Amino acid sequence: MDMKKISIAIIVIAALMSVVLAAEKKESPKAAAPKAATPKAAAPAPASGATSTTFSVFGSLAGAFIFTFFGYYLQLKTYFVLKSSKSYLDSYYLKIKLQPYQTKSESHNPSAKWLISSLQSGASAICQSASSKMTTSVERAQYSDRVPIRSIILRPDGGSGLAGQQARVGGWVKTGRKADKDAFAFLELNDGSCAGNLQIIVEADKGDLGQLVLTGTCLQVDGVLKLPPDGKKQKVELQVEKVIHVGVVDASKYPLPKTRLPLELLRDYVHLRARTNTMGAVARIRDELSYATKRFFHERGFRYVNTPNITTSDCEGAGEMFQVTTLISEAEKSEKNLIKNPPPSEVDVESAKLIIKQRGNDVAQLKSAKASKQEIGAAVAELQKAKENVLKMEERSKLQPGIPQKDGKIDYSQDFFARQAFLTVSGQLQLESYACALSTVYTFGPTFRAEKSHTSRHLAEFWMVEPEMAFAELEHDMDCAEDYVKFMCQWLLDHCMEDMEFFADKIDKSCIDRITMSAKTPFARITYTEAVELLTEAVKNGKKFENHVEWGIDLASEHERYLTEVKFQKPVIVYNYPKEIKAFYMRLNDDSKTVAAMDVLVPKVGELIGGSQREERYDVVLSRMKEMGLPIEPYEWYLDLRRYGTVKHCGFGLGFERMVQFATGLDNIKDCMPFPRSAGRADL
Amino acid sequence: MDMKKISIAIIVIAALMSVVLAAEKKESPKAAAPKAATPKAAAPAPASGATSTTFSVFGSLAGAFIFTFFGYYLQLKTYFVLKSSKSYLDSYYLKIKLQPYQTKSESHNPSAKWLISSLQSGASAICQSASSKMTTSVERAQYSDRVPIRSIILRPDGGSGLAGQQARVGGWVKTGRKADKDAFAFLELNDGSCAGNLQIIVEADKGDLGQLVLTGTCLQVDGVLKLPPDGKKQKVELQVEKVIHVGVVDASKYPLPKTRLPLELLRDYVHLRARTNTMGAVARIRDELSYATKRFFHERGFRYVNTPNITTSDCEGAGEMFQVTTLISEAEKSEKNLIKNPPPSEVDVESAKLIIKQRGNDVAQLKSAKASKQEIGAAVAELQKAKENVLKMEERSKLQPGIPQKDGKIDYSQDFFARQAFLTVSGQLQLESYACALSTVYTFGPTFRAEKSHTSRHLAEFWMVEPEMAFAELEHDMDCAEDYVKFMCQWLLDHCMEDMEFFADKIDKSCIDRITMSAKTPFARITYTEAVELLTEAVKNGKKFENHVEWGIDLASEHERYLTEVKFQKPVIVYNYPKEIKAFYMRLNDDSKTVAAMDVLVPKVGELIGGSQREERYDVVLSRMKEMGLPIEPYEWYLDLRRYGTVKHCGFGLGFERMVQFATGLDNIKDCMPFPRSAGRADL
Repeated sequence: MDMKKISIAIIVIAALMSVVLAAEKKESPKAAAPKAATPKAAAPAPASGATSTTFSVFGSLAGAFIFTFFGYYLQLKTYFVLKSSKSYLDSYYLKIKLQPYQTKSESHNPSAKWLISSLQSGASAICQSASSKMTTSVERAQYSDRVPIRSIILRPDGGSGLAGQQARVGGWVKTGRKADKDAFAFLELNDGSCAGNLQIIVEADKGDLGQLVLTGTCLQVDGVLKLPPDGKKQKVELQVEKVIHVGVVDASKYPLPKTRLPLELLRDYVHLRARTNTMGAVARIRDELSYATKRFFHERGFRYVNTPNITTSDCEGAGEMFQVTTLISEAEKSEKNLIKNPPPSEVDVESAKLIIKQRGNDVAQLKSAKASKQEIGAAVAELQKAKENVLKMEERSKLQPGIPQKDGKIDYSQDFFARQAFLTVSGQLQLESYACALSTVYTFGPTFRAEKSHTSRHLAEFWMVEPEMAFAELEHDMDCAEDYVKFMCQWLLDHCMEDMEFFADKIDKSCIDRITMSAKTPFARITYTEAVELLTEAVKNGKKFENHVEWGIDLASEHERYLTEVKFQKPVIVYNYPKEIKAFYMRLNDDSKTVAAMDVLVPKVGELIGGSQREERYDVVLSRMKEMGLPIEPYEWYLDLRRYGTVKHCGFGLGFERMVQFATGLDNIKDCMPFPRSAGRADL
Repeated sequence: MDMKKISIAIIVIAALMSVVLAAEKKESPKAAAPKAATPKAAAPAPASGATSTTFSVFGSLAGAFIFTFFGYYLQLKTYFVLKSSKSYLDSYYLKIKLQPYQTKSESHNPSAKWLISSLQSGASAICQSASSKMTTSVERAQYSDRVPIRSIILRPDGGSGLAGQQARVGGWVKTGRKADKDAFAFLELNDGSCAGNLQIIVEADKGDLGQLVLTGTCLQVDGVLKLPPDGKKQKVELQVEKVIHVGVVDASKYPLPKTRLPLELLRDYVHLRARTNTMGAVARIRDELSYATKRFFHERGFRYVNTPNITTSDCEGAGEMFQVTTLISEAEKSEKNLIKNPPPSEVDVESAKLIIKQRGNDVAQLKSAKASKQEIGAAVAELQKAKENVLKMEERSKLQPGIPQKDGKIDYSQDFFARQAFLTVSGQLQLESYACALSTVYTFGPTFRAEKSHTSRHLAEFWMVEPEMAFAELEHDMDCAEDYVKFMCQWLLDHCMEDMEFFADKIDKSCIDRITMSAKTPFARITYTEAVELLTEAVKNGKKFENHVEWGIDLASEHERYLTEVKFQKPVIVYNYPKEIKAFYMRLNDDSKTVAAMDVLVPKVGELIGGSQREERYDVVLSRMKEMGLPIEPYEWYLDLRRYGTVKHCGFGLGFERMVQFATGLDNIKDCMPFPRSAGRADL
């Protein structure tokens, strides 16, 4: 296989591509719109839209290869998803992904960068022109008869290419109004599949318009998609032919009005607030960020490990943990039993003891009277019964209402786990045990803090993403953290623009800029010492902080935000913190003053990620624990990881709700969580 | 764009493909092995292996399209991942995925099936021949200097194509032995990236062989990959040039010996057991199943919602919940405070009251003596102070050690959430509120049951996957459940064969057959009534069950396993259960006797999934709740979902550890969870 053959092949393909592209241009989008197909139509028929698409794919593929062959040094990263659909039962996804296995060096070559971006924009243009013609019939949801509204209105053509088609849709009415002397009604229907609504038109003979127009009404309808009159905002609307289902609303009682409620008030209706624009968009952003997380780590060989939620270790040693117990409910149960069936009094026990004496006498008498073996045996059995009865009564007479005690303390041996148990504050320590076996792992699960803070930054239950890597040091940790945040930002730009635009419009004007900047710009990296110097300089130049700045302080939120928002105006990683302000498990640097810790600070949020290289040296971690006054026994298992086959490793934790806050610009973290829990509040 | 043009294009591409395939055959695999490249070599140089691969891709793509065009009715499903790597810094992934958007009709056409399987095997053959030549240098892990052992030994060529290359690897020694009069040692090194080990050879001058050969030693080394002498099992081994890191082991104390420990014993070392073959394989299977779960639901438009783990609702009404509280720790804290700073006695309070009297007298005296305003003011202030002091003392004298009580009951208004709170037993109810807004959602999180069962089937903390779909009925629910289980089984076959083969070899011979059968065979679907008839028939024919069979019973595990293992010998969905044995939220069928519930039963495990259509009719669900004696008030929010815009919806729950058990054939569910929690046991 020589270069000549390759060149010939490329020329053939390129020629083919240009023919195809030229052919495509001749077709106007409208001409490609096919005759209506009903949602259930399964008849396989070739659709010209689908075939031309196929060739676009070939074209872009060929383009990609041309660049690859003639630009060996080029870091190429394109991702396009094309859907080709001929009818319901034979539609295909074609995914082509071409991306460098190593992404670190992307920024080395400026001309490569230019090529990448031209290629990307070229590819996306081809994709867009292709996909707008591709779907020639509506796409049914997979486990429902309905068509998701997203698949109609989020098409590049806004759905106009589907005009003339039958569709069954379902959703909840956002707003509705009657028109033309109540002859028909316009309804804005939303099914949560996207932020946008589908406008639907119902004539009076199809249903009770007075009911249908009420905000919150659930509706499932069959209808025909049609182009609206010129000048309308929407590209397509649905003319209802049949109302399949109505879930009514009593407007006088429904807590969500047509107009926007403050987010604070919405928190009183966590069971309904997902129906609002804001909370629906938050839910979709959360979903995409969690999917991006899975993709990021899976594609890099990290294994997902479920660390325990009920734990008997305290990772932070901070003690602000929720206790998990069945002692109280067991005590309540046994109290109820005691009331029904009271324990024997001392008098009861004494009289039962008297019976033993009597039975003993009976046996003695029978023996002295030389009674039959049978008679004596029966009397002995009676005596035995009486003795057992007393034992039982004595046992029951000790029963106390309330939580079982032993030596003046709660007797945890009687708790469910036979010891005191808590909800986890971090999966890190347990995760380390898996990193020291599978090398690269991560966990993504709930964590819990029993902090009685009533602020907009605290949740009692929140989700955390924690990777842990063996054979890796602090620099790898920072690389991974930066790549991960960038990956999520890019994911939002690629997959969530409709919702991001909503947030930019209603919540935080700068959110898209912030995400875009974070996706593209290398993060600043400074040591803690440099950070303190920069802050000191700022103070000298007149900047006022509430908290005094000097080497050794824990950076306050105002300091962090100054660094990332004012000084660098981009994400900043601060590393090598004084050991006094950090946890025992962080690796001591050679200066014996600082530890290999790092925090990622981002605009709007401050600290988004906290991580460190872990202390892998048995002696060092042990002396650090003693220094900090920690008990050794509960950490013996953790020390085992250093005793047996120890390895350099590192990891970090990202507060998932903070990432949602970073993306959306929401002020209160309680709105970044579907069902927020905080001091004094746990609805549902 | 007419058919003629398409045909011409196809012919051109097909011709191209055959040329490429012919050209490939001429190259022997060894000829394609390139010169050694060091791990850090960044020099971009064209490699012939990569280019021929590219053409394989074109070839198979073209093949796929030919089948698509000439077989419109064909349901085509191929998935191939090709890696092309020229050097470290410009290596690419190329993923091509062509799959039907609707998979339900796959089995309709037998000839289509044949075409699919030929095409799939053809494609995979092309991929294999291609990928064996493609990677011409070792692949470094992304955030580490090491090369994952997986990327060496799991290549189709077993790593032989990498012979001559430099590689840095790290891992833990599984077994080691010295050879040739201690001149060198053979070590089997495992890094958890796959089940297999890399054999490495260390000469005596490179390190302390006595230490290196010990099981559990951690090692990071630089070396050269080389072909082993003929007749060896492995395809490649590493000759060590430099030992970078040794994490020693004291063999006399290390709890994991070279030989296999029973799984039961390993449970005493949950912090180390991930280093064993079995638990490493379980971890990888869990990871892949959780990734498959995310993929399955994401690709079908389901949104991931984090339902709360701390809850104030009891989904099942069963009451076996863990309580979450800070009352006990707060009580302990305040007890300590009381000891340090005891509350005032009655005498103290009385003497403080006397002071008030005195101060009162002082004021009266001053007033009658017509003292200055200033003097009187000062005396009044003193009186005020004395009064406040008494108030404080009275307050403190009420302080009781122990948990705060009110009216003889625990005063939960003083607990963290100002009410009684528990760990969730299911996210379903809360998830329904999101389904009634976003239409298709799912949750995947921990759930908790405080059942004191000491069986091999119970965990106190386990993970559950729960989808919930609006505008969908029981049949959609069953379709989704079946597709999901099949998807996971197929995923295991496509991505986890190395680990599955381990389980088939060591744990359960039939596990691969079971998974393959479940991936390919349509599940049986029978009503509960039919199930009871089949069981009754079996009893008539001599089958003995411990539990009596009659209409109305809750099917016992022995019944379930008879149906799926003996009668149908494949997964079975049983639906329409008697309402008496099912939960209040399940939709009442028209017969008023049964509810639209369904269970998926699978061999080895029994019930894997339980689901239902939910009762969306307000009146019906309310009367069901009353029938079952449930309190209404705590469910008012749940009833709201039926009051305002109600919708037909359904969902199910899959016990994730049971799925792991189904895949691996492990007998005890405690080995399907990294950190199992059960009655009396919560290590770490």
